[in-house]
Amino acid sequence: MVVAIMRSVVAAAAFFGSAGAFNSRGALRGSLLARRSASTLRGGGVQLADGHYEYLVIGAGSGGIASARRAAQYGAKVAVVERARLGGTCVNVGCVPKKVMFLAASMMEAFHDAPGYGFHNVDVKFDWPTIKANRDAYVLRLNGIYGKNLGTSGVDTLSGTASFVGPREVSVGGKTYTADHILIAVGGTPSMPSFPGAEHAINSDGFFELADLPKKAVVIGGGYIAVELAGVLKALGSEVTLVVRGARPLKSFDDLICETLVEEMGKVGMDLRCSATVSSASKMADGSLSVALSDGTAIEGVDCLLAATGRKPLLEPLGLGTAGVELSAKGFVAVNEYQQTNVPGIYAVGDVTGNVELTPVAIAAGRRLSDRLFNGQKDAKLDYAQIPTVVFSHPPIGTMGLTEKEAVAQYGQDDVKVYTSTFVNMYHAVCTRKSKTAMKLVCVKSQKERVVGLHVIGLGADEMLQGFGVALKMGATKADFDNCVAIHPTASEEFVTMR
Amino acid sequence: MVVAIMRSVVAAAAFFGSAGAFNSRGALRGSLLARRSASTLRGGGVQLADGHYEYLVIGAGSGGIASARRAAQYGAKVAVVERARLGGTCVNVGCVPKKVMFLAASMMEAFHDAPGYGFHNVDVKFDWPTIKANRDAYVLRLNGIYGKNLGTSGVDTLSGTASFVGPREVSVGGKTYTADHILIAVGGTPSMPSFPGAEHAINSDGFFELADLPKKAVVIGGGYIAVELAGVLKALGSEVTLVVRGARPLKSFDDLICETLVEEMGKVGMDLRCSATVSSASKMADGSLSVALSDGTAIEGVDCLLAATGRKPLLEPLGLGTAGVELSAKGFVAVNEYQQTNVPGIYAVGDVTGNVELTPVAIAAGRRLSDRLFNGQKDAKLDYAQIPTVVFSHPPIGTMGLTEKEAVAQYGQDDVKVYTSTFVNMYHAVCTRKSKTAMKLVCVKSQKERVVGLHVIGLGADEMLQGFGVALKMGATKADFDNCVAIHPTASEEFVTMR
Repeated sequence: MVVAIMRSVVAAAAFFGSAGAFNSRGALRGSLLARRSASTLRGGGVQLADGHYEYLVIGAGSGGIASARRAAQYGAKVAVVERARLGGTCVNVGCVPKKVMFLAASMMEAFHDAPGYGFHNVDVKFDWPTIKANRDAYVLRLNGIYGKNLGTSGVDTLSGTASFVGPREVSVGGKTYTADHILIAVGGTPSMPSFPGAEHAINSDGFFELADLPKKAVVIGGGYIAVELAGVLKALGSEVTLVVRGARPLKSFDDLICETLVEEMGKVGMDLRCSATVSSASKMADGSLSVALSDGTAIEGVDCLLAATGRKPLLEPLGLGTAGVELSAKGFVAVNEYQQTNVPGIYAVGDVTGNVELTPVAIAAGRRLSDRLFNGQKDAKLDYAQIPTVVFSHPPIGTMGLTEKEAVAQYGQDDVKVYTSTFVNMYHAVCTRKSKTAMKLVCVKSQKERVVGLHVIGLGADEMLQGFGVALKMGATKADFDNCVAIHPTASEEFVTMR
Repeated sequence: MVVAIMRSVVAAAAFFGSAGAFNSRGALRGSLLARRSASTLRGGGVQLADGHYEYLVIGAGSGGIASARRAAQYGAKVAVVERARLGGTCVNVGCVPKKVMFLAASMMEAFHDAPGYGFHNVDVKFDWPTIKANRDAYVLRLNGIYGKNLGTSGVDTLSGTASFVGPREVSVGGKTYTADHILIAVGGTPSMPSFPGAEHAINSDGFFELADLPKKAVVIGGGYIAVELAGVLKALGSEVTLVVRGARPLKSFDDLICETLVEEMGKVGMDLRCSATVSSASKMADGSLSVALSDGTAIEGVDCLLAATGRKPLLEPLGLGTAGVELSAKGFVAVNEYQQTNVPGIYAVGDVTGNVELTPVAIAAGRRLSDRLFNGQKDAKLDYAQIPTVVFSHPPIGTMGLTEKEAVAQYGQDDVKVYTSTFVNMYHAVCTRKSKTAMKLVCVKSQKERVVGLHVIGLGADEMLQGFGVALKMGATKADFDNCVAIHPTASEEFVTMR
């Protein structure tokens, strides 16, 4: 149990900074409090009024918690408001439970491959309720640890729904709080498609409530959430149809990645329907759904219709109008590069801004905002360019920077040089099942072949990307890649041996 | 089968360069032949004498093959001599079969974890002969592909044992060949410890011949080979004692890595005996071995005594004395930074030089040598500093650059800042078994916290390291790490969120 607890602490640490953060916080806090006590602007040494905070964060998701704790480390009086469970989308209905299910699905794949590795009697039974119960218990442990960490950081947690009653006033559970700075970090929620019978569909939140493995699922969507959840269901044994409105799933990704993904989906028998939409869904006498597609076909006997067709900001019942906060054309909270809304003292980070909706992006933006507001780092802001990201598909995908097409559009065909490699991971050498690995480096010739795009699909892509991310962000050229000796036998070594 | 073949081609590509190399070779060859035909030094257009080569490579292992093929790409007339199977240590009795066994062992670990992921009826039986047969077949496929690739590259393969009969003359199977340049790339072989009964011990070559899983194994050695093979046996079900002469295994690695490894070995019940040696081994009446240790204890009923106590260069029967090639104090072929021996025209790369005995190092050194000799890149040489390397232990280890102690010795305690993180991978969140991940960044304060050492032990370390390797080789600072957005949820993200 000691180890189990440690794990949870550290899962939290992944959001809040590593173990080192805890060790160094005392020192940080000390020095900054010293700085603050000398400040006249903040009224150093003056007791703040009841119900008044220097920093009020609305939403205890990844971005809100990270920003709140960072501000508290600098000595600010901080509260975070949350109406549901701590941790937001990522912990409760996003990255974390998704990754657990990806790992379960990957384990099922390993069982398929086991005979090649000399394992006999591989006749396992998969039991969804067990993994669901274990997953839920894990998330619950994380909720608790998040709460404890907020307390340890000196951040007040206000339970309830926040709504603006003025530009610097927020009501929570009938009580009004005032603040010098207010952060909107309320996140997003799945948006549902509209078709007759859409009420029979669940979304990704509902996916994590499923009591058992669906026998036959129709997943709607072409983005990473649809691809990931369809992949989990398929690997675990569901019959799956993936309905994609566009010409292919993950259409914004590099062609090599999309094409390989489609090929791999075909190998495992995923029923992929591109350039198609769901026209209607009807409940049949036996309780199953009949799902009609725009191509005129229908899928019968469906026990899970899952829509993963996008997400929208969670604006209600925030009362942004009362505060005078403006929205973007797409309906997200509009912010500038410093996360400022149009109203002085009101900021937003994370999914509610619609800008690169990823947990670590919200965390990084939230922390930098607190660095700026409460630690005098006046230029602190997140650079939204060249953010590495992973899709936990089967096999997983890692991508960063420009696709080949984007690079050609930006630099011209003659100035772009591309290196690719396609192979089957050594893991499959003794297996019947073979999944492909494909890699691409997109380089700009006139910039000493600077690597402006890096793309990979294949086993291990998930852990492979971060280091290359650091290198690309540093401006790595192809020569820098060539200059690093390969690590054998790995998949990642292909990135430094391409010619 | 199409895919199976593809995999093998690419396993080879990992040594020879990626698929891209094949595509671009035509263009390369064309341009370099054009350059060469204009050269008077090489006698362009003149038919070379029978039995004469511009480049004669002794040893068709990783380094020799890579160098030979690179030279042939530049239009040189090249032969490679091999007395055994193509591919050398790595393919036949090293990296490749070792990785396959590591993967089998990792699969066994996954099966232990499976109940937490909802898998019931996990009662798999492991059958060593099956994985051995599949592994041997895979290595055989690779042998064939290596031969085919040599042919495609235009490299002659001479079967037999090479020995010098003069400084530029080599005898193979009774025939004498002359060459302008000769590369010694014969590699190494396990060196055996000396104690009464040592004849009962096998070495790593013998490990790959084992017909079945040992019930009770004693592994002698504290280096990475001993650690890897002991880990494989333990995970697959052997009772294992690891006898380490030094105070701990992998003693040259950073303390954090060693300590975590020892802790993990303890968790799985590895019988680790440090500061100990084997005094003797005796065959008992039942055919088993009794292995006596220097600490006065004895291990009975041993059916596998495996010595992994180091490797030595394969100098016999090369006849280096005839050629006048000098050896280093430790008995390896002495070379300078350009891989030149003391005899003009004779070079050496790889394990026979005793300098960072890793496959990709031999490959990189061999290729750069050919770049220099046959493509006019007169400064081409391998930088032996900051080479990333992975140990396929359980869990795996990645390491690059200086340990904390080395950094302190080099830069002084006050100028070294270390960041660490220790956690249990999310993979274990739903499992009973918990393996630890530990990470360390070693930075030099006065160099803007340049990262001079990066160390990790834990799940995924193997694929995680390469990208960070590129970054470190570029001179990455802690700020460069901080500047890259994390990828969640991964283990590798901890490297960019440390505080």
